[in-house]
Amino acid sequence: MRGFSSSFFNRASRALLDHSSTISKLLLISTISGGAHISFSEAEHGSNAVETFSDVTKKKKVLVLGTGWAGVSFLKNLDISSFDVQVVSPRNYFAFTPLLPSVTCGTVEARSIVEPIRNIIKKKSGEIQFWEAECIKIDAANKRVVCQFNDEKLLEKEEFLLDYDYLVIAIGAQVNTFNTVGVMEHCHFLKEVEDAQRIRKSVIDCFEKASLPNLSEEEKRTNLHFVIVGGGPTGVEFAAELHDFVHENLVKLYPKVQDLVSITVVQSGDHILNTFDERISSFAEQKFQRDGIEVKTGCRVVGVSGKTIDIKVKSKGETYSVPYGMVVWSTGTAARPVVRDYMEQIGQTHRRTLATDEWLRVEGCDHVYAVGDCATINQRKIMEDISTIFSISDKDNSGTLTVKEFQDVVDDILVRYPQVGLYLRSKHLHSVTDLLNDPEGNERKEVDIEGFKSALSHVDSQMKSLPATAQVAAQQGSYLAACFNHMQESKLKPEGPLRFRESGHHQFRPFQYKHFGQFAPLGGEQTAAELPGDWVSMGRSSQWLWYSVYASKQVSWRTRVLVVSDWTRKFIFGRDSSRI
Amino acid sequence: MRGFSSSFFNRASRALLDHSSTISKLLLISTISGGAHISFSEAEHGSNAVETFSDVTKKKKVLVLGTGWAGVSFLKNLDISSFDVQVVSPRNYFAFTPLLPSVTCGTVEARSIVEPIRNIIKKKSGEIQFWEAECIKIDAANKRVVCQFNDEKLLEKEEFLLDYDYLVIAIGAQVNTFNTVGVMEHCHFLKEVEDAQRIRKSVIDCFEKASLPNLSEEEKRTNLHFVIVGGGPTGVEFAAELHDFVHENLVKLYPKVQDLVSITVVQSGDHILNTFDERISSFAEQKFQRDGIEVKTGCRVVGVSGKTIDIKVKSKGETYSVPYGMVVWSTGTAARPVVRDYMEQIGQTHRRTLATDEWLRVEGCDHVYAVGDCATINQRKIMEDISTIFSISDKDNSGTLTVKEFQDVVDDILVRYPQVGLYLRSKHLHSVTDLLNDPEGNERKEVDIEGFKSALSHVDSQMKSLPATAQVAAQQGSYLAACFNHMQESKLKPEGPLRFRESGHHQFRPFQYKHFGQFAPLGGEQTAAELPGDWVSMGRSSQWLWYSVYASKQVSWRTRVLVVSDWTRKFIFGRDSSRI
Repeated sequence: MRGFSSSFFNRASRALLDHSSTISKLLLISTISGGAHISFSEAEHGSNAVETFSDVTKKKKVLVLGTGWAGVSFLKNLDISSFDVQVVSPRNYFAFTPLLPSVTCGTVEARSIVEPIRNIIKKKSGEIQFWEAECIKIDAANKRVVCQFNDEKLLEKEEFLLDYDYLVIAIGAQVNTFNTVGVMEHCHFLKEVEDAQRIRKSVIDCFEKASLPNLSEEEKRTNLHFVIVGGGPTGVEFAAELHDFVHENLVKLYPKVQDLVSITVVQSGDHILNTFDERISSFAEQKFQRDGIEVKTGCRVVGVSGKTIDIKVKSKGETYSVPYGMVVWSTGTAARPVVRDYMEQIGQTHRRTLATDEWLRVEGCDHVYAVGDCATINQRKIMEDISTIFSISDKDNSGTLTVKEFQDVVDDILVRYPQVGLYLRSKHLHSVTDLLNDPEGNERKEVDIEGFKSALSHVDSQMKSLPATAQVAAQQGSYLAACFNHMQESKLKPEGPLRFRESGHHQFRPFQYKHFGQFAPLGGEQTAAELPGDWVSMGRSSQWLWYSVYASKQVSWRTRVLVVSDWTRKFIFGRDSSRI
Repeated sequence: MRGFSSSFFNRASRALLDHSSTISKLLLISTISGGAHISFSEAEHGSNAVETFSDVTKKKKVLVLGTGWAGVSFLKNLDISSFDVQVVSPRNYFAFTPLLPSVTCGTVEARSIVEPIRNIIKKKSGEIQFWEAECIKIDAANKRVVCQFNDEKLLEKEEFLLDYDYLVIAIGAQVNTFNTVGVMEHCHFLKEVEDAQRIRKSVIDCFEKASLPNLSEEEKRTNLHFVIVGGGPTGVEFAAELHDFVHENLVKLYPKVQDLVSITVVQSGDHILNTFDERISSFAEQKFQRDGIEVKTGCRVVGVSGKTIDIKVKSKGETYSVPYGMVVWSTGTAARPVVRDYMEQIGQTHRRTLATDEWLRVEGCDHVYAVGDCATINQRKIMEDISTIFSISDKDNSGTLTVKEFQDVVDDILVRYPQVGLYLRSKHLHSVTDLLNDPEGNERKEVDIEGFKSALSHVDSQMKSLPATAQVAAQQGSYLAACFNHMQESKLKPEGPLRFRESGHHQFRPFQYKHFGQFAPLGGEQTAAELPGDWVSMGRSSQWLWYSVYASKQVSWRTRVLVVSDWTRKFIFGRDSSRI
């Protein structure tokens, strides 16, 4: 399951950054010796900006790759009157991925959680071009990408090129098999809508196969052994959905095999849901134990064949084989081939994902941005800049920093290095100046450079890369759109914090993630919720909270109504077991 | 589109044949020299039937192949307390096929028109075994069939054998390509739910492909040229649905290509909908002309390549090629391979479909019945029996038949040779005895054998094989179930007409099809309806009639509600254009 609260953080980010959609802009471009000189003038309030070179006036081309959370959030928030926007994605729809586990068992229909991308862009007051194709190559040197339309009818692939001035990479990630043998061939995944539809058919197939005549009880048990690899939110939610589907619906239709069903969750860590609060983790484990879902923690899958899965117990080092009916692999993400190829072009060879700076600009490549699961922010460590910060803050060049001097730069530090804020919260400190206290906790009036370094020495340990969730992706998309919307004004009036290593201010505030909590539906109308401010809620009430959050966060009124009507259908008629 | 009115004709056939579900039956079987002697006694009203040989008491095994209209109608009407029933079908659901064209464009969702077969059999008070497998061989000599489960995961096929006492073949037919080159490879069909889903994706693909950059207008036009081969109800309804989908929904999302769309219906006959009343036929042609749907009558498709379709104008004999984006092939049915193989076993080598007698028993094979599209009834000609009928009717052996003598056998003749009734209706004759009038129409008191032969000589020309519709299949299924339910009683008290060639009566009345009319939705809320009694209705009002008939005829309350809610969704939100 990926994160959510898009409406919350959309609102938050809109509050943070002013709208610019009411300001019409005029870009004047004159080509000088092969380059482009861009001049800008605001045409607001009927100003008399002279439209010289109007024949070469041209909007900048923004090319967006991907129509997932990050890409769609970017498009929805972008003021397209200033740009010539193109979107490329092999999926002509946006999928509300947190409900994918529900689609696997028919609690919600696939079609209810998707929204055609052309519907979304139609609502913008301007034109966005959409191409249903896959980007197969990013040619950063020539500022263009190679796209491919997959013609299933003719089994042909048609290629075309697209130029860009700005490229926004939002193509997500692919499943990470950790090169485990047999996973690609024999496992199901749960990243795309089609995956969920395939899983649904496969579950029914397992039941039908176990019902065939002439099968031994052992063979029936094997066909009805469902293995989920990965105890993260997606895996746990799928296990819970499957348990409900089996016990609420399928046992009535397949009464002879109902006692032969088993569900196993294999988790390499010590607990399932280990990114959640540990109260949630153990609540989930207890719930699963009561439900008869076996949780194998501390185990790693080392191979999958057509009929068995090889599990290694990490503590003992021994490996054993278990026969199965179906395996769903849900263990994190890896870079897509096109991103990997691009990373090699720009010298990011040894990284796992594309690195961006705090403004979501791809490191080592101008005019290219990356948002969502395909990228990680390479947060600058405060210790790398500690001497510069000290000397800039020490305005009187006294060699010591007073509390007053420190207070003048505190806001800029908090914005530029978000780990400082996280560190304060983790230490329950109320004010940044408390950092300057001596090791015994006594207030100090001033510190020298060594004292300053030691005061901040543990701050960088709070840096963590952001989780690959819908919540992060959507916030990044809307943040980046706001930057694009302000691109011209902010050149004149920078919005960001003080530059410590150079003069002036940064053009924009860096991206800052705001965590709005997460839900883990555990089946049987039990849901665990982790809310901001250390709140944890578990049980039946959270289920209704979950339903209401999901219903309120569907991207359009259409999907909202469809999902609620699917839930109603499920309550009345149960889930459908037809193999389609 | 296939026929309908299942609730009507279910009611009708139930009225025709008494219920037997309240009568408990006892089959006593003792094996004598390899054969089986069956004695029957009614245990009704606490009768004192002696249960001798109770150790060998065994229910007869009925094996049903297929879960379409015929199979499900049979199962729903069968009194399973007297039989040991097994069902084999590769589809674990029943599909309401008349709505398939609506699924192709998302007017109705696939899942709304299916009902799990296990749900249907669960409602019977008794046990029916269902196996999700395909029957790949009927071994009539050994009274067993070979079935195969298609394991998609392991790419393995698992075979098993099933024995039967009675076999009901209801596996439908496959599409008939008339061996036209390229059809299997390049055309879509519209027989299964999966076909409709594939067509839906393909329509969207055509629009996305036509929207790609760098395409000439000619190429865009080609991608948006939709060809429907076959002007029967299915083809016409699909063309109408597609036209509505394009003009109500897609043009808003693909405004740049909206003028490039074209739809062509290729029909080998002189008119589309040629099984309907000709008023409907020409109404449909005019409607299509106004809508810009091109109807090419008198044309035959002689080949399909990946990019073009070859059409032969029958009158001129010349062939030309047309580029296309998508072809839907909808031109009638042919026997499935397993039926073809079975036909060879039983010597029906030169027929197109399996022949049954008027009691739906497969000719040349005991204890095997065939219903629905896989079979045709080989109606006996009255002229073959004319001398026997004459001599039996001529009770006083006078060599002439009086009106009185004829009247005594008229009812039996009407039941045994339904073409007599059809002939009377076609000639607008009120009474069968009018047949005996002389060529000038004057009443005759009696006729000799030659006069009798000439009076009935044109009757057999009214024989037509029944259309391959849902309506016929469902009536056959419920008829056959009623026969099974009466199997024992009717041995003592035959229900059928007089046997002319042997003594006594036939055990059952032969199957008689009752036509309840047919609908052809023509798009834009226009529907043509042909109702019993020469009624024809066209236009908007028929659309609502159509909706109400369909809503009332859905197999279960569940599908009824789902279809109505899909229509509501469509009215509110339009059809979805996501490519899933």
